[in-house]
Amino acid sequence: MSLDESVKYISIIGATGYVGAELVRGFAGHPYFRFRHLTSQTFAGKPYSDIYPEYRGVVDNVCEDIPYAEAAKDSDLVITALPHGVSAKIVPELLAEGCRVIDHSGDFRYKDLATYENSYKLTHPNPELLETAVYGLPEFYREDLKTAKLVANPGCYPTCSLIALAPFLKNHLIEEDSIIIDATSGVSGAGRKADLAYAFCELDESFKPYGAVGHRHTTEISEQCSFLAGKASGDIKVTFTPHLAPFKRGMLASVYAKPSQAFENVSSEKINTIYNDFYKGETFVRVLPGKTLPDVKAVACSNYIDVNGVYDPDTNMIKLFTAQDNLGKGAALQAIQAANAMFGFPEEAGLKNIVRGI
Amino acid sequence: MSLDESVKYISIIGATGYVGAELVRGFAGHPYFRFRHLTSQTFAGKPYSDIYPEYRGVVDNVCEDIPYAEAAKDSDLVITALPHGVSAKIVPELLAEGCRVIDHSGDFRYKDLATYENSYKLTHPNPELLETAVYGLPEFYREDLKTAKLVANPGCYPTCSLIALAPFLKNHLIEEDSIIIDATSGVSGAGRKADLAYAFCELDESFKPYGAVGHRHTTEISEQCSFLAGKASGDIKVTFTPHLAPFKRGMLASVYAKPSQAFENVSSEKINTIYNDFYKGETFVRVLPGKTLPDVKAVACSNYIDVNGVYDPDTNMIKLFTAQDNLGKGAALQAIQAANAMFGFPEEAGLKNIVRGI
Amino acid sequence: MSLDESVKYISIIGATGYVGAELVRGFAGHPYFRFRHLTSQTFAGKPYSDIYPEYRGVVDNVCEDIPYAEAAKDSDLVITALPHGVSAKIVPELLAEGCRVIDHSGDFRYKDLATYENSYKLTHPNPELLETAVYGLPEFYREDLKTAKLVANPGCYPTCSLIALAPFLKNHLIEEDSIIIDATSGVSGAGRKADLAYAFCELDESFKPYGAVGHRHTTEISEQCSFLAGKASGDIKVTFTPHLAPFKRGMLASVYAKPSQAFENVSSEKINTIYNDFYKGETFVRVLPGKTLPDVKAVACSNYIDVNGVYDPDTNMIKLFTAQDNLGKGAALQAIQAANAMFGFPEEAGLKNIVRGI
Amino acid sequence: MSLDESVKYISIIGATGYVGAELVRGFAGHPYFRFRHLTSQTFAGKPYSDIYPEYRGVVDNVCEDIPYAEAAKDSDLVITALPHGVSAKIVPELLAEGCRVIDHSGDFRYKDLATYENSYKLTHPNPELLETAVYGLPEFYREDLKTAKLVANPGCYPTCSLIALAPFLKNHLIEEDSIIIDATSGVSGAGRKADLAYAFCELDESFKPYGAVGHRHTTEISEQCSFLAGKASGDIKVTFTPHLAPFKRGMLASVYAKPSQAFENVSSEKINTIYNDFYKGETFVRVLPGKTLPDVKAVACSNYIDVNGVYDPDTNMIKLFTAQDNLGKGAALQAIQAANAMFGFPEEAGLKNIVRGI
Repeated sequence: MSLDESVKYISIIGATGYVGAELVRGFAGHPYFRFRHLTSQTFAGKPYSDIYPEYRGVVDNVCEDIPYAEAAKDSDLVITALPHGVSAKIVPELLAEGCRVIDHSGDFRYKDLATYENSYKLTHPNPELLETAVYGLPEFYREDLKTAKLVANPGCYPTCSLIALAPFLKNHLIEEDSIIIDATSGVSGAGRKADLAYAFCELDESFKPYGAVGHRHTTEISEQCSFLAGKASGDIKVTFTPHLAPFKRGMLASVYAKPSQAFENVSSEKINTIYNDFYKGETFVRVLPGKTLPDVKAVACSNYIDVNGVYDPDTNMIKLFTAQDNLGKGAALQAIQAANAMFGFPEEAGLKNIVRGI
Repeated sequence: MSLDESVKYISIIGATGYVGAELVRGFAGHPYFRFRHLTSQTFAGKPYSDIYPEYRGVVDNVCEDIPYAEAAKDSDLVITALPHGVSAKIVPELLAEGCRVIDHSGDFRYKDLATYENSYKLTHPNPELLETAVYGLPEFYREDLKTAKLVANPGCYPTCSLIALAPFLKNHLIEEDSIIIDATSGVSGAGRKADLAYAFCELDESFKPYGAVGHRHTTEISEQCSFLAGKASGDIKVTFTPHLAPFKRGMLASVYAKPSQAFENVSSEKINTIYNDFYKGETFVRVLPGKTLPDVKAVACSNYIDVNGVYDPDTNMIKLFTAQDNLGKGAALQAIQAANAMFGFPEEAGLKNIVRGI
Repeated sequence: MSLDESVKYISIIGATGYVGAELVRGFAGHPYFRFRHLTSQTFAGKPYSDIYPEYRGVVDNVCEDIPYAEAAKDSDLVITALPHGVSAKIVPELLAEGCRVIDHSGDFRYKDLATYENSYKLTHPNPELLETAVYGLPEFYREDLKTAKLVANPGCYPTCSLIALAPFLKNHLIEEDSIIIDATSGVSGAGRKADLAYAFCELDESFKPYGAVGHRHTTEISEQCSFLAGKASGDIKVTFTPHLAPFKRGMLASVYAKPSQAFENVSSEKINTIYNDFYKGETFVRVLPGKTLPDVKAVACSNYIDVNGVYDPDTNMIKLFTAQDNLGKGAALQAIQAANAMFGFPEEAGLKNIVRGI
Repeated sequence: MSLDESVKYISIIGATGYVGAELVRGFAGHPYFRFRHLTSQTFAGKPYSDIYPEYRGVVDNVCEDIPYAEAAKDSDLVITALPHGVSAKIVPELLAEGCRVIDHSGDFRYKDLATYENSYKLTHPNPELLETAVYGLPEFYREDLKTAKLVANPGCYPTCSLIALAPFLKNHLIEEDSIIIDATSGVSGAGRKADLAYAFCELDESFKPYGAVGHRHTTEISEQCSFLAGKASGDIKVTFTPHLAPFKRGMLASVYAKPSQAFENVSSEKINTIYNDFYKGETFVRVLPGKTLPDVKAVACSNYIDVNGVYDPDTNMIKLFTAQDNLGKGAALQAIQAANAMFGFPEEAGLKNIVRGI
């Protein structure tokens, strides 16, 4: 489908939200991908840099409001940044055109249909796709990504929770009913919208929990935790509480769990070693040295996720911490990492040197 | 000791740190207290408003560097805002002058000497005072405050943790070995100092855990939890993790615990009812309605602490949340509330209407 | 009209915007005023503390949606916090009930009708009121306030511009055609509304000019400058540029002007002396010592305005600086200062000790 | 001097300050430069990513504390990020080794020795270098950069002031004695240091002018303005006032000037046209369309500088605005642009796609 065989052509559906904007940023400097269509209903006909002036001279492509199938026709990859429910209807139409798809909604992240439908209060119009969709966390599913037609980009909270928990779940080193995830997101996670709740004067100098019962990411985390532990969807259930903090980008997960009987001689040092062993060779999972703990500042605007953990002997508790950018490894840049894996490019292509600095 | 019998005279030792500044703010508009001495070694001879220009025309008292005993001599109440270790040595000298004392350090907060000494890595020079010192949380110890000579102002994390947990510990409604406290503080908690770690460019757009094992407030929380449950110091141990967030003032505690067998028909509504019953008549503990969760924004610059909780039936977990100002209810304004109780003034005197607004 | 003769009753029309909220904060702790009605169309029937949780237990009055005349009937003072154009129609109705009025819009701030109508692109329905309305800057018009029926609360930018310029205009010490005002406001100046332009992610880490030609406050400043210099409306014209900065509260004016021939031996010291002489005895105008320059931090949440200036001999330029809280001295708290003057209370009543602290 | 002829080797002296860190970020992804030495006295022996954890896996080079000449020996380009006064002494030593040098201090920015010495209160130890040093603003001096041995990287305030003023000075369209520059910087401009004045709690929610008389950048701006107008150093003098705002990165200049007689039919449209004509073909100077005004948000973390202006007919005043990143176009990234020009690479190499995004 490519005009130039050496590069792949991508289209972004819903390109003007914050996830769309981060996709645009990431792909703008990518050595192997080129933009075909940036679609937007609201801003059709306007240069992208009219909506995001930071892209003036960088990405001046004009936003289009074209039928989804048309966007798919001449693209190797279509990335959808649409609300859940909407994606579920549209994605089959895109796949029918023969392109591959990465979807940012929750619509294809679950293997268990009932869990999805209960969590999202929706009837899935295309449940058969749940089986073939690949959960786009390259560190766990990179083999499947190579041939995937449809990739469900993971949620932001699930990504940082699962990266923290994976080595311990895979090796059965924690009590599976003891997992508590206390996580905090920057404001960009709420998306780009006119909403008093996200106004500067309402959020500056604020900090609060939200969705303390039944946040949708809870079941997504639980299902993937179950899979990591070699169990069926729903076998493991986690306690999850998100918070909102006054910064734009970044997400921290503080994860608590009891060591299992299998975890011998548990210590902070051992936790660090387990992480180093498990994530050896992973470019984007950075295991911090010693007892250094992650800070969202260090991962802002990047695809890196920093991880470390400690053991509290007084209460026999393991504490695991991960920091990522909610729009980066938590969304758009992880999608680019997955796109690299899908098309056989090095996973770090276009991503390795993107950091915010100070 | 007062010149004017209708008011009480206070001195603040270490008046120019952030806790000192908040004491000054709170007492400046107080109907029943007047400043006698504001002491500072660094700024002796300078008007207070030279250090904090916001107080120009409000508090222009000149900072003094006088012997502690001299400050105590003509004061009804001396409030010390000094580092731990220093307070332990000085407070007896102040008490010897016949004045009453509120101390902001950790030096007199413990009943169990060994716990203090292990937590602070110090040998206490005046351990006999631990017994008579009153833990200055008025909601729990107001009777003792009336006659207290020495009041140990509680730590900020302990205050919001204990207010969250008290009704459940007193009534044995939670599993005592299941308590996890995940808390977040604004930057002013670190005090007023030249330190790169607290520079604007290092903290703006950052979020991170710190002191993940062995933070000193852990043992202070544990001891008071034990007392609330009618047990001996150390019988209950809690898991505690503090985080640092990019706002100046405020602190949020997210507390997790398993309901005990005694907790029948546990539900979010019941948790709300328990709080309302327990804190009935308390001016400064505000139980939020329904499932409204606390936000540090709503308590900034005030002595209020907002509280609520929910129940997650999927994991049988209770989640409790409190928000306070770390310098307010978490430090200086709580000390004023205690001072009111000590001298027989209404606890809300000078405090009720202090809120930041937007 | 008061039930209790020792206090005055106030109603606030449009009580739930940010100016309304600051009026509520200021009056909540006032010794001589009591709330009668807090009106809101959007939130009628709800306790004020449902909209602003920081006021829980402080101001729980229920918002009402009642006819304006009814609110006026049993109030000594009605304060309107309504959009321009709306106030112009409603205020006569309020005055007809015999109460006194402070209006926060631009509708009654001008003496020259054409200037108002050109600036606001409106036809004034009650132009006769322009003559009798008092411009509510107590430092300049406190005698008129004593008997005023209608007070036009000054704009935020005009207040800080005029306080900076007054001594020099009154004494003809600057070239009247050389005035440039470069000012910066915190975000709360935009009001409480769902608008993407004021979203946290759009404004955090941003800084920009706006309304660089024809901002409405320009003509308000120009007219009052003319009056201060003893001239007719429009005789003096100023260059004015506002900027928006990422903080919630506060406003800084940096004012440039050439010294006139009448200004002998101009120096930074002399500017400071002129300010000290001119504002002697003023509680809320704080002339900073030496070459100390104002900072919005020091006036946040207060009615204070800090002022100072310097002289640059290299370019023969005077630079004047004022800092105030845009919602404080720039709006609501200045209205309370005016209300004090109107009813014969000390101007500092209820205001002197309100500062934010850290 | 290069080992690999296809790339150039750079060393950074003083690599661990904020300017150094931004140089490291910019060069890390550059196609044609490679690091040779990153020097630091404080952090010698530590990996760069220990000091800036965001660079873990990106730049793990070990900091060295080696003699300056040694760093120069095997480098094609040495970039110094040292305090003024220090650079003046060291740079000749570097040049003696045959490498080319970009210096970030003020020591080589002036052509007029007396102006430098008066501004910096120093005696220049190597004044002969002032003549040959090239002022590293590529838009004005790119021809000279090609052969320059020593490049003086411009100050941040001068860069944004000069880009705003250049077309009008070159074409004599403004009164040369009427220039007023009111500028605002983010906090990173103060550098990386432990200093209470730059602590989070001192700067968050603050805004203030500083250095209102005699800021050193004033004379640097004045000299370059004189040269742009074809005059001798000091012939033009500007009024300049810097402000400090609570964001990390970014700088805005608001520039005021009177149109000269030569400026016919002055209008906002014409100002925009003049900018478009003057900066045609410049990648990094982005003239905004219509009356769109610059915002520091749009240039953060990039080498772009956004520019536009308006005309106020009421006061016959031109207002010009530029926004840049103080560490980007205002310092480190501009140095990379200059380095590209020096070595014959496309000026946009490694810079074009660096933007922060949201």
